[in-house]
Amino acid sequence: MTEKTSTGKKILYIFLFFATVIVVFILGLLAASIFERRGESVARLEPVRDIAEWEPRNEIWGENYPRQYETYRKTLDTGFRSKYAGSATIDYLEDYPDLVVLWAGYLFSRDFKQARGHAYAIKDIRQTLRTGGVEFSPQPGTCWSCKSTDVPRLIQSMGAEAFYKSKWSDLGEQVVNPIGCQDCHEPKTMDLRITRPALIEALERQGKKMSNITHQEMRSLVCAQCHVEYYFKGPDKYLTFPWDKGFSADSMESYYNDIGFKDWEHKLSKAPMLKAQHPDYELYMTGIHATRGVACADCHMPYKVVGGVKFTDHHIQSPLNNIANSCQVCHRQSETQLLKDVYERQDRVAEIRKIAEYSLRKAHLEAELAWKNGASEEEMKPILELLRSAQWRWDWVAAANSVGFHSPVEALRVLGTAIERSEKARGLLNIVFTKKGVTLPVTLPDVGTKLIAQKYIGLDLEKILQDKLNFIQNVVPEWDKKAKSRQGSLQEY
Amino acid sequence: MTEKTSTGKKILYIFLFFATVIVVFILGLLAASIFERRGESVARLEPVRDIAEWEPRNEIWGENYPRQYETYRKTLDTGFRSKYAGSATIDYLEDYPDLVVLWAGYLFSRDFKQARGHAYAIKDIRQTLRTGGVEFSPQPGTCWSCKSTDVPRLIQSMGAEAFYKSKWSDLGEQVVNPIGCQDCHEPKTMDLRITRPALIEALERQGKKMSNITHQEMRSLVCAQCHVEYYFKGPDKYLTFPWDKGFSADSMESYYNDIGFKDWEHKLSKAPMLKAQHPDYELYMTGIHATRGVACADCHMPYKVVGGVKFTDHHIQSPLNNIANSCQVCHRQSETQLLKDVYERQDRVAEIRKIAEYSLRKAHLEAELAWKNGASEEEMKPILELLRSAQWRWDWVAAANSVGFHSPVEALRVLGTAIERSEKARGLLNIVFTKKGVTLPVTLPDVGTKLIAQKYIGLDLEKILQDKLNFIQNVVPEWDKKAKSRQGSLQEY
Repeated sequence: MTEKTSTGKKILYIFLFFATVIVVFILGLLAASIFERRGESVARLEPVRDIAEWEPRNEIWGENYPRQYETYRKTLDTGFRSKYAGSATIDYLEDYPDLVVLWAGYLFSRDFKQARGHAYAIKDIRQTLRTGGVEFSPQPGTCWSCKSTDVPRLIQSMGAEAFYKSKWSDLGEQVVNPIGCQDCHEPKTMDLRITRPALIEALERQGKKMSNITHQEMRSLVCAQCHVEYYFKGPDKYLTFPWDKGFSADSMESYYNDIGFKDWEHKLSKAPMLKAQHPDYELYMTGIHATRGVACADCHMPYKVVGGVKFTDHHIQSPLNNIANSCQVCHRQSETQLLKDVYERQDRVAEIRKIAEYSLRKAHLEAELAWKNGASEEEMKPILELLRSAQWRWDWVAAANSVGFHSPVEALRVLGTAIERSEKARGLLNIVFTKKGVTLPVTLPDVGTKLIAQKYIGLDLEKILQDKLNFIQNVVPEWDKKAKSRQGSLQEY
Repeated sequence: MTEKTSTGKKILYIFLFFATVIVVFILGLLAASIFERRGESVARLEPVRDIAEWEPRNEIWGENYPRQYETYRKTLDTGFRSKYAGSATIDYLEDYPDLVVLWAGYLFSRDFKQARGHAYAIKDIRQTLRTGGVEFSPQPGTCWSCKSTDVPRLIQSMGAEAFYKSKWSDLGEQVVNPIGCQDCHEPKTMDLRITRPALIEALERQGKKMSNITHQEMRSLVCAQCHVEYYFKGPDKYLTFPWDKGFSADSMESYYNDIGFKDWEHKLSKAPMLKAQHPDYELYMTGIHATRGVACADCHMPYKVVGGVKFTDHHIQSPLNNIANSCQVCHRQSETQLLKDVYERQDRVAEIRKIAEYSLRKAHLEAELAWKNGASEEEMKPILELLRSAQWRWDWVAAANSVGFHSPVEALRVLGTAIERSEKARGLLNIVFTKKGVTLPVTLPDVGTKLIAQKYIGLDLEKILQDKLNFIQNVVPEWDKKAKSRQGSLQEY
């Protein structure tokens, strides 16, 4: 060996030594980052306190699960991107005064607004005119069922029957925490669970075994505790889902007909009406997303990553507000294109829904006129049955969220049959008119705005609002005071 | 070095030598296979003969493009998998006798069958009762437009105007080769081209530059030469697409109303009717496949690989017959699931279509009864306008292939408006009846089968069939004989 090669080798060894040092240092940094992120996620998943079995306060759960709670609190944000929702306090009766006529004699004709986020559930049920005021308080306990994490607790302690048949206002100081953690989660394991008996009872009547339900099904079923069609059964107002014959508009109508149920008698037409609630789950079940195994939570509560932690976004909202994390997980189109695709479906559903609404409004007013001109019970019976069926079918689509997007083809099928039945009723009404010597076409009253329509159907809005104000100013603060002293704290939303 | 290591190295070298020989041999085999496959594909793409500019004979083109021609010939296979198509000679008038009433006074009430494959185009247009016989030959040359590769040749030589205004029967010996190669391809380059002036004229009136059309658009537009809504304009029966205001049912209806066009006056109701042809392209353009850039050919003529050659399958057919190569190129679901998905849409469209059909049949018969009871022109005018609009909208969906699948949401929207209008017409008819003292509900004639319905609308089927038989036995053989002597050969299908 020469001096030269020996020096060369020394330089090489020194170089290798320092290169190794640098590489090892960088690896150390990377490892630290990984440990940190892992630590971050583990730290936050370790509960900081025990949660009692029926704890209703979301903020207590939130101490253990700050990310879920923080995103849940974003349901207080009421801005919607969808052109069909816009701001979440849209007054539908203002926008569609036909609805006042369609619901004449029913509390929906007083007040019907675009729903706000879950965190507003208590505030909004207290404020809606449908729950009345101090003098007029028409609702049973059943009406609280979907509004609060206090409900599972009360059902546990009182029993479901006693809970439902209470007076709504008698439970006011007990039901103060809005829809939240307790409604869907088991407090020890955070497993999803069904806390509302009505869903379990309905599924069991269908022959479904609760123990066979998968986690992915649960990610829709926890929503189906409330986002469904239901009715208050019997004098005890027992909350019941009319699913025994199936989910479809046709099956549920047939169920109601078989038991001779009506929600109310229409004030103008005297038809024995059905009010659809919000059969979101049922409509969704007929659509392509359900067929492909996509759960409610996949679009309305998509996964989110913050720091090192992946978790479910509890800001439950329209996927149109969050296309990147919902739609685009599966669909590779641009946001603009996907929004356009949704609107193309919704626009068509809205067009046909409007035709059905228009036809139903005319039909109710014409039926009222027929009665006034001496139509007999016998003459009116087939007309009123058609009206009941038509409006139920219209409402099955109209009352469901999403403007039919959850299943546009089924929505349009059902609306098609609504138009058929409503127009058939009008055809029969023409027969009655000509028999009674009423000149055709008949002249119908102008009900072109919410106020005029409400006055026409006999509502004294001033009195109703005064009673509500009295309730908000004098009753609600008492409820909150008692609730705070009972549970030790009360979060304001 | 020892003897031992030297022997070891020798063995290693010998092993490496033979291993190399084997590997090189295998590579040689692979290369040969690749060259062979490439050669196979190139050999078949080299034309074996020149094809004259307006060559109508598919079998001549087939000599150069045997794969395409062989698959084209499979359009002779008339079995469909779809439950809505089944065998391709379904007699729709037998299955839906309401159609006889809906088309009373129009040739469709004589004969309307499920279409067969392209290769049957000549055979079937000669056989349908809509082209008449020897004594009664009602059609103009326009009626050949979509049936034959002879059409571009004749339009080239005669001019479009002269071609359209000829008598259909006068062109019989000239138009003998069924829909095929010439209709969509340029014979030198095989580029797609539009050979029918009506499509080019319609697109140009819409302001579309033909030079800007992409290849992918052409893969739908060659189909849109025929699978569209069209009418025979003016006394010269100039083939025209009513697209000037847009593609939708609403836009085309508005176009027809503006020019005061009617296809015929309804024999029973006297309504000024429109007959939708098969607006497949227009309906498809409103659907998700068009939105996503999927062309007609992607589903109806998917790519196929035989030997080393990838080519377009010219067995044009329902994708339901070939789900693996059409749907499953994009959709990862099973065949069973995809078929179920298609039927779920089609079943709903069929249900609502049936409601519209039923309503329209009643409306026409009731309008006839109103006339018989002395209804005036003035009383009937709004009724007949509603009937025209309703039936057009029903037909826009019903006449299009795919039972609405090309765009189920739009199909159901349009059918919803058809029901609305037809039922409104019936409501007005009830007014007329009661004015005229007709007891309601009115009694309508039984038209429950094709034969009874055809008799009711005054068709003498025996005479019509006898005339057709005379035509098939005496005229058609003459046409074929002359065609054979003119073009040198005539392929039978």
